[in-house]
Amino acid sequence: MTETMTLKKLNTCSSQDFIAAMAEVFEHAPWVAEAIVTERPFEHVDALHTAMLGKVLALQSDAMIKLLSGHPELAGAHARLGQMTKDSVREQGGLSLQTLNEGDARQWDALNLAYRDKFGFPFILCISRHSRMSALREFEARLKNDRQTELRLALSEIGRITRLRMAARIADHGMLGLTGVLSTHVLDTANGRPAEGVRVQLYDVQDDGARRLLVEATTDMRGRTAKPLLSGMPLRIATYELVFHVGDYFLKAGNIKGDWPFLEVIPVRFNIKDPEGNYHVPLTVTPWSYSTYRGQ
Amino acid sequence: MTETMTLKKLNTCSSQDFIAAMAEVFEHAPWVAEAIVTERPFEHVDALHTAMLGKVLALQSDAMIKLLSGHPELAGAHARLGQMTKDSVREQGGLSLQTLNEGDARQWDALNLAYRDKFGFPFILCISRHSRMSALREFEARLKNDRQTELRLALSEIGRITRLRMAARIADHGMLGLTGVLSTHVLDTANGRPAEGVRVQLYDVQDDGARRLLVEATTDMRGRTAKPLLSGMPLRIATYELVFHVGDYFLKAGNIKGDWPFLEVIPVRFNIKDPEGNYHVPLTVTPWSYSTYRGQ
Amino acid sequence: MTETMTLKKLNTCSSQDFIAAMAEVFEHAPWVAEAIVTERPFEHVDALHTAMLGKVLALQSDAMIKLLSGHPELAGAHARLGQMTKDSVREQGGLSLQTLNEGDARQWDALNLAYRDKFGFPFILCISRHSRMSALREFEARLKNDRQTELRLALSEIGRITRLRMAARIADHGMLGLTGVLSTHVLDTANGRPAEGVRVQLYDVQDDGARRLLVEATTDMRGRTAKPLLSGMPLRIATYELVFHVGDYFLKAGNIKGDWPFLEVIPVRFNIKDPEGNYHVPLTVTPWSYSTYRGQ
Amino acid sequence: MTETMTLKKLNTCSSQDFIAAMAEVFEHAPWVAEAIVTERPFEHVDALHTAMLGKVLALQSDAMIKLLSGHPELAGAHARLGQMTKDSVREQGGLSLQTLNEGDARQWDALNLAYRDKFGFPFILCISRHSRMSALREFEARLKNDRQTELRLALSEIGRITRLRMAARIADHGMLGLTGVLSTHVLDTANGRPAEGVRVQLYDVQDDGARRLLVEATTDMRGRTAKPLLSGMPLRIATYELVFHVGDYFLKAGNIKGDWPFLEVIPVRFNIKDPEGNYHVPLTVTPWSYSTYRGQ
Repeated sequence: MTETMTLKKLNTCSSQDFIAAMAEVFEHAPWVAEAIVTERPFEHVDALHTAMLGKVLALQSDAMIKLLSGHPELAGAHARLGQMTKDSVREQGGLSLQTLNEGDARQWDALNLAYRDKFGFPFILCISRHSRMSALREFEARLKNDRQTELRLALSEIGRITRLRMAARIADHGMLGLTGVLSTHVLDTANGRPAEGVRVQLYDVQDDGARRLLVEATTDMRGRTAKPLLSGMPLRIATYELVFHVGDYFLKAGNIKGDWPFLEVIPVRFNIKDPEGNYHVPLTVTPWSYSTYRGQ
Repeated sequence: MTETMTLKKLNTCSSQDFIAAMAEVFEHAPWVAEAIVTERPFEHVDALHTAMLGKVLALQSDAMIKLLSGHPELAGAHARLGQMTKDSVREQGGLSLQTLNEGDARQWDALNLAYRDKFGFPFILCISRHSRMSALREFEARLKNDRQTELRLALSEIGRITRLRMAARIADHGMLGLTGVLSTHVLDTANGRPAEGVRVQLYDVQDDGARRLLVEATTDMRGRTAKPLLSGMPLRIATYELVFHVGDYFLKAGNIKGDWPFLEVIPVRFNIKDPEGNYHVPLTVTPWSYSTYRGQ
Repeated sequence: MTETMTLKKLNTCSSQDFIAAMAEVFEHAPWVAEAIVTERPFEHVDALHTAMLGKVLALQSDAMIKLLSGHPELAGAHARLGQMTKDSVREQGGLSLQTLNEGDARQWDALNLAYRDKFGFPFILCISRHSRMSALREFEARLKNDRQTELRLALSEIGRITRLRMAARIADHGMLGLTGVLSTHVLDTANGRPAEGVRVQLYDVQDDGARRLLVEATTDMRGRTAKPLLSGMPLRIATYELVFHVGDYFLKAGNIKGDWPFLEVIPVRFNIKDPEGNYHVPLTVTPWSYSTYRGQ
Repeated sequence: MTETMTLKKLNTCSSQDFIAAMAEVFEHAPWVAEAIVTERPFEHVDALHTAMLGKVLALQSDAMIKLLSGHPELAGAHARLGQMTKDSVREQGGLSLQTLNEGDARQWDALNLAYRDKFGFPFILCISRHSRMSALREFEARLKNDRQTELRLALSEIGRITRLRMAARIADHGMLGLTGVLSTHVLDTANGRPAEGVRVQLYDVQDDGARRLLVEATTDMRGRTAKPLLSGMPLRIATYELVFHVGDYFLKAGNIKGDWPFLEVIPVRFNIKDPEGNYHVPLTVTPWSYSTYRGQ
């Protein structure tokens, strides 16, 4: 990735350096950066982004389709063969392309084909906000739209993609609403204190129930993890499972003893629908009961 | 299995019929039934059981070991080859012998060998109260005992085995403390009413997290299942997972709409330690929160 | 009150005895009983009630108003002076007439006057289902209705009043939907068992926050009271407060020690709106947390 | 009260000014300030306090008793007549002396007399940490101690009193552990969001159940009050009641309608035992259920 620059530097560097820095924000469309270089300085990064996106929105129909067509197919053959820009490769990482089996690959290929056939441009999705499951559901739903709606949605997704790419390039970007937070805390209501030393795991869960460990942490004396379980990026739309190892905790606390405690490992399964949302999912727990809820 | 008889009939039938009915209560020891036939009538089934067990407890050392040795090894080669009494076959059913892989089989064989080597009689466990996991843990723990303790525990387990076998043979047995109950109910605290029509599944969970569906039911207008999830038998000592499909319920109730509801499928994982216990595990739930506890 | 009789006896006794038994079911209208005496036998008590009410519903306008006018005013001067039928006296008991101060009395008198002035008959309410607060609110709301609506509501309330009076006179009445139930139980989720020995008090709460003790009980080994807190009668529409003395319980249980436990006395305040409803208001509690909900 | 000064100024001002500022920290004992004036500068306020307290702890027996005797009786005749230092008047404010009836006054006088009679000096308590109820209980408990214990406790309380007085005089005092916090928040788990606009009241509760309103606030869009309910001072040891007006909230939210909602006003009663503690008492609530706990 290009190194990050400050907005100040972007505003004052040579045209060439500015274009180099912003060239890949819009996929295969360095001309967007070129088109606004003389409009510098920009007061905020949001203003810079708005200016670039404005050039795209102003395109004539043919040029627009050409720009849309520059985007790689999701999990398509190109993706699987690694023939994508570095940004796209990184962004599609959440799809676990390397683990796609042949059946999956055929399903994606069929969707990509059907979409391009119906609309004349590839399916565009800000994949950083999605898991394989949610991307698939979105794909299937959007295939049913009309062309006008899809043009609008494609541009909206390009807005999301390019905001994230811009933020990744600018050191002090100050752009709001790009990332979400998932956090937890554990309160021991049998002893009336935060539960310290509880092992917590976060998994993502596939349609078939298969789980993949994302993060593991241990609660501190405030019953919290040192940092949020997820933060600094959009939260992928997906099913998650938090697992709290409370059996060990209550054994050590002296509340229970022996084998087969009633509660040993507590799974809390939930969906995240809003990638930029604030999800706080606490656990209040005794050896015999627990509660959880979506807090904020 | 022998057909069930009433206690009244057992008290008044011919000696031959009585012995036939009770012969297999003690494994490979029809003489126990013979020894008490003249003590009839028995006022309660418990009195009958106590009389039979008394004959066993009164045995001299050699005879006692012989009786213990009549019991089949748990998940041993005999079990796997089907060379057991019909009662033993049925009781060992919970061990899922048919799914034992070679590694497992070797582990059981090694334990059986070590036990018999140390104590001079086979490991005896009332397997109807156990899962494969709990039987294994129990086996490993008991291997560390001294012989005196194991003699006592073996007889205690035989007491449990034979009480269950007797209950299965006598129509109006009236024996207490043989079985446990696992039940649930679902209360919708967003709408202030029992949650009707919630699909509920009960799984048992292996050490490696693999789950096996035991029961599936749907809650009725009282938020309960038509009958307890488990009842009429000892509850196997094991890890269980209740799964409540609340997403569909709240969608239908109109509380939520669209994809990716925060709560869709709620797993509640717990251990059962007391096979004869009463476990009530309710769920109070809204689209955004839930609580569960061990009730009774 | 007349002694209770069985339906069978009512169906077969002399006309005179039947009329004597039923004479006061409709206030100051023994003719209603007389009018149906020849229709005996009745298969169910509900059929008997329907027959009597039918005679009232069939009345011409003038006769109807005369019947309505036979009902005493609520908390009116007659009530305060004790010039009512025994049934009315008993039923108005919940209004705590003896504690009405002069201001209250004036308010009731004014309402009674305004109502009679507007509609030409007294305000009729099945007072067994009401508290002073709910009766007052109902009175004020109904004063705003038109005469047609009030005629209908007055007859509906007479239906309720007379069903209760009939049930009180017939030993095996079998009438459904006459009474409600308020019950509780206390679950100790710190120790995983029903909370035994918790003192529970039920108060009714006035608009000004003043409370009056209705029932006091102690939980048994199931965490329940020996009988429901309220049952066998309509639950008065009112604000209630359950008070759970959990401090003493957890002190005795060894979970806490010393003065000033975080939770000592837990008040749970709620309204009952449905006099014939089933209200189960449990408490799940630790020394540091609690939950309650309306169950059923 | 003397105006606040910075520590820097206290370290550099004239001896006279320093003594004037600190003279009343120890009740009727300006000599304590005088005794340390030459030890300036002090690096932290805690060091200053330690130095002053050290002079007191070093006193010979007679001088010590004289110093203790300089403290006014709690709620004694002096207090009621207003013959106290300004600090003492302010600190005893929580005792609601003006509302003491004759019986109360006699009880306090009797305790004061008995204490002075037994120990030879007045009962000393850092009254800012107490309510009338807790002060009374403490008084009765401490009367049972021996003299040695009471000497120690009196000095410990003087340490607390003087730390608070010092903090009140020094602008940037930086003394830790002087104050506590009581806060709340309300989470609407029926709708999955913080409950905004819920009126919250905090009362203190007397032994006889009488309540006095301390604070009233309304939750904001985060479900929290703009500032903690109590903070910046020690929390008086006492019984408190939080009252949440959730009926209005859920009516406005559209979850319920009509009169007599199940939950209308939720009282949460709890004790505070640790004046310097952090008490977070949240409410998670639906129209039909709620939970609360001590968080931190």
